Amino acid sequence: MGFLVFVGMGLCDELDLSLRSIDILKSVDRIYAELYTSYIPHLSVERLEKLLGKKVEVLSRSDLEEKARETILAEAKKRSVALLVPGDPMLATTHVALRIEAEEMGIRTEVVHAASIFSAAPSATGLQPYKFGRSVTITFPEGGKLSNTPYEVLEENSKRGLHTLFLLDIKAEAGKYMTIRDAVHILLQLESLNGRGVVGESTLGVGLARIGSPDGVIKAGALRDLATYPFPNPPYALVIPGALHFMERRALELFAGLGE
Amino acid sequence: MGFLVFVGMGLCDELDLSLRSIDILKSVDRIYAELYTSYIPHLSVERLEKLLGKKVEVLSRSDLEEKARETILAEAKKRSVALLVPGDPMLATTHVALRIEAEEMGIRTEVVHAASIFSAAPSATGLQPYKFGRSVTITFPEGGKLSNTPYEVLEENSKRGLHTLFLLDIKAEAGKYMTIRDAVHILLQLESLNGRGVVGESTLGVGLARIGSPDGVIKAGALRDLATYPFPNPPYALVIPGALHFMERRALELFAGLGE
Repeated sequence: MGFLVFVGMGLCDELDLSLRSIDILKSVDRIYAELYTSYIPHLSVERLEKLLGKKVEVLSRSDLEEKARETILAEAKKRSVALLVPGDPMLATTHVALRIEAEEMGIRTEVVHAASIFSAAPSATGLQPYKFGRSVTITFPEGGKLSNTPYEVLEENSKRGLHTLFLLDIKAEAGKYMTIRDAVHILLQLESLNGRGVVGESTLGVGLARIGSPDGVIKAGALRDLATYPFPNPPYALVIPGALHFMERRALELFAGLGE
Repeated sequence: MGFLVFVGMGLCDELDLSLRSIDILKSVDRIYAELYTSYIPHLSVERLEKLLGKKVEVLSRSDLEEKARETILAEAKKRSVALLVPGDPMLATTHVALRIEAEEMGIRTEVVHAASIFSAAPSATGLQPYKFGRSVTITFPEGGKLSNTPYEVLEENSKRGLHTLFLLDIKAEAGKYMTIRDAVHILLQLESLNGRGVVGESTLGVGLARIGSPDGVIKAGALRDLATYPFPNPPYALVIPGALHFMERRALELFAGLGE
């Protein structure tokens, strides 16, 4: 009997794999990887293959979202298959859909957890995880139209004094990664469309670039300053803090250069 | 010059360490571990020491919260020191306080991320991470008095259709771990104290035990049924879902035995 195991790859590169994940990957019949739901900045598939002593087949979005039933899942009916994914698995709907389809076909599934931006954002900033409200992705405009959801989520969270984590859109197959500058501009544009005073140029934000990598950067400051700050290459996230406890403010001063 | 690196140990045992963490731990002058802010069910300090070829000194709460300045921090001024912590570092206030104190003493600090219940809860249940509101810990009554915060957070989240992650209190040094049964009883008690119809015996919940371990169990059902379900040993968490998307409902049926 086959099975399908989703293995999280964490945030930086192949060295984020745990000993447990490596044992599993060495034992399975086949290893696939999807690298489009998020971006692992220093990952080298060649080094990964060398580390595992095995081939890793990288899947495109259409491989995973359109052809999975005939390929990966058909294979996982009979053999053991691992799917490597960025971050912690299942945080992308695609993974949940695939796991559901596998279970419906009678394939046993497993999940191996790993570091994720959802916990690394509070962890890296020193902002309390209990004070984060709902998270939301800022997406690129579709047909010239912006989604208003980020504004609504920020409004809801801010009213209650909660922090908001914004993930920034990725179109990996087009090599397009939303920057913190783009995200700030979109938030300000949403403010001028809605006009409810939720966010402005002087609103405090925390820009996160390459969190979990040795070249990661965190910078706290007014959104207008974050928009021109020289962050390194992607991936990015943005936090807009709610009410700050004094320890959180001190953490932002010391870990994120607030006030510098 | 010394430094202090906080290394996350993840959820299950020493095999959750990443290759990056192992490299760092092998290179530092001294390794400490705190094991009281959460519980890593299968961790063996002996096996960990064997794996690293090094001594790991386990700290008590008072070592970390009262004596850190004279011990760990004094040492980290001159030498390289790692502090191993459960889950992803910095999600406990103690870690943030220690990191602040270190930076104020001019000690360089680093954080190595790892799997955390904050992302593993959505990941393991298939519930969408974007639909989680604020998280909250259900604490043991202090002097006979229950904290009302879990009720208030659940009310806020439920009104907005959002999921709520409850972490369950741990008094590691007394060997006391709140069970899902305890948590359900506390929520029902808070309902009878507040009377606002936020939660009842038939409310849908998802009990999580030992998430990230091979003997982990997830069970979805009415709170009254979760209270008597034979979950394995700790640690535990509880999710009360808000409005369910059909894919989330299907995920709970397939991954968490909803309706069985």
